Amino acid sequence: MKTLVVCSGGMDSVTLAYHVKRERELTRLISFDYGQRHKKELDFAAMAAADLEVPHEIIDISSLAKFLTGSALTDDIEVPEGHYAEENMQTTVVPNRNAIFLTIAFGVAAGEKSSAVAAAVHSGDHFIYSDCRVEFIDAFRTMQNLALEGVSEVDLYTPYVNSSKADIARIGAELGVPFEKTWSCYKGGDRHCGRCGTCVERLEAFHLAGAKDQTVYEDTDYWRQVCPV
Amino acid sequence: MKTLVVCSGGMDSVTLAYHVKRERELTRLISFDYGQRHKKELDFAAMAAADLEVPHEIIDISSLAKFLTGSALTDDIEVPEGHYAEENMQTTVVPNRNAIFLTIAFGVAAGEKSSAVAAAVHSGDHFIYSDCRVEFIDAFRTMQNLALEGVSEVDLYTPYVNSSKADIARIGAELGVPFEKTWSCYKGGDRHCGRCGTCVERLEAFHLAGAKDQTVYEDTDYWRQVCPV
Repeated sequence: MKTLVVCSGGMDSVTLAYHVKRERELTRLISFDYGQRHKKELDFAAMAAADLEVPHEIIDISSLAKFLTGSALTDDIEVPEGHYAEENMQTTVVPNRNAIFLTIAFGVAAGEKSSAVAAAVHSGDHFIYSDCRVEFIDAFRTMQNLALEGVSEVDLYTPYVNSSKADIARIGAELGVPFEKTWSCYKGGDRHCGRCGTCVERLEAFHLAGAKDQTVYEDTDYWRQVCPV
Repeated sequence: MKTLVVCSGGMDSVTLAYHVKRERELTRLISFDYGQRHKKELDFAAMAAADLEVPHEIIDISSLAKFLTGSALTDDIEVPEGHYAEENMQTTVVPNRNAIFLTIAFGVAAGEKSSAVAAAVHSGDHFIYSDCRVEFIDAFRTMQNLALEGVSEVDLYTPYVNSSKADIARIGAELGVPFEKTWSCYKGGDRHCGRCGTCVERLEAFHLAGAKDQTVYEDTDYWRQVCPV
């Protein structure tokens, strides 16, 4: 089943790419340049595609950046530190980002005659990203079936929608994903900061999964202060 | 109620822009550069925005063009002539175009704190564009409510979804829309060709509405051969 993977270069979507490569016919990885402050993640997505021997396409929608405002991921707002469940993480919401990525991915899939778009949304995203919840995924699938009726049949494949990030770390470890070749940090330093929401979530996930993580972090202890483990 | 209008520069969306300007608070017109072969329509959208004294934004998603293939609107395939209800009009389908435009428009609306996105889909589109049907519009609205829950409240305003193009011609005439300053033709000539699907539909609509049309067409008679009126 021909499937393309929406890949940010983070551990979730890279794990998903390895997962699809094993189970299905992986056609390509697609990433988005949406005017994010740090484009480092795109290099990690390209690296994953090279390792998986599939094409990598960066779709440039950076002209949208000036409209999708008010987010620490695109604007000059300080990236918040701490746990995702906290109030300040709202500044990492880019309005409608997932819905935009997914409709474009469905257009690409229809164009290349793929049967599915795979996306690595997981239950840890549900707290703050409303467009990562099961209800959204179901409604999105219904909308797409109607939009492409008579044109193309494309399904949305989200195997981690009810899984935690720790589950993904476990699955990735089994698949032999080289986690040190994935990038999560919202800050754009040389190394993962260990303090922003996504670094904290990443460190916690590896701890819970008991999985090995070769990633080098600036701060390896901070996450313990903010996580209830 | 702050509302932005997705405007192609055609008679439907320009009429909608005048309609929204009268009934609501029109914030801006947005158009898309999706790598369409003829960009002339974008100039007409800009003209409408100037006449309505609102900003016009062209959102550049032309990097998608090479993926959204197989359409006479983006590729080097001959634009078909005749009536929309015919089989050959399938080549004017750009996969997932409306869904992509609308999710981006919702992101822009959320960013500018608008309450609605207005789009000029109408019943004449239903034959061949599955992403213009009432069922799609309803499913899209549901998906967006879930995607933006807790972030923003944006509605989809489609007042013409059950109207014919002739109804739109009537409404536009009442609103004083300068139809000669709208562009429908799929070919990129100096004047409307009068033979492609959208020209035929346009000429038929003005005839049925009994509305005045100052537009100059290359061929003013062809439409009568292919329309059942």
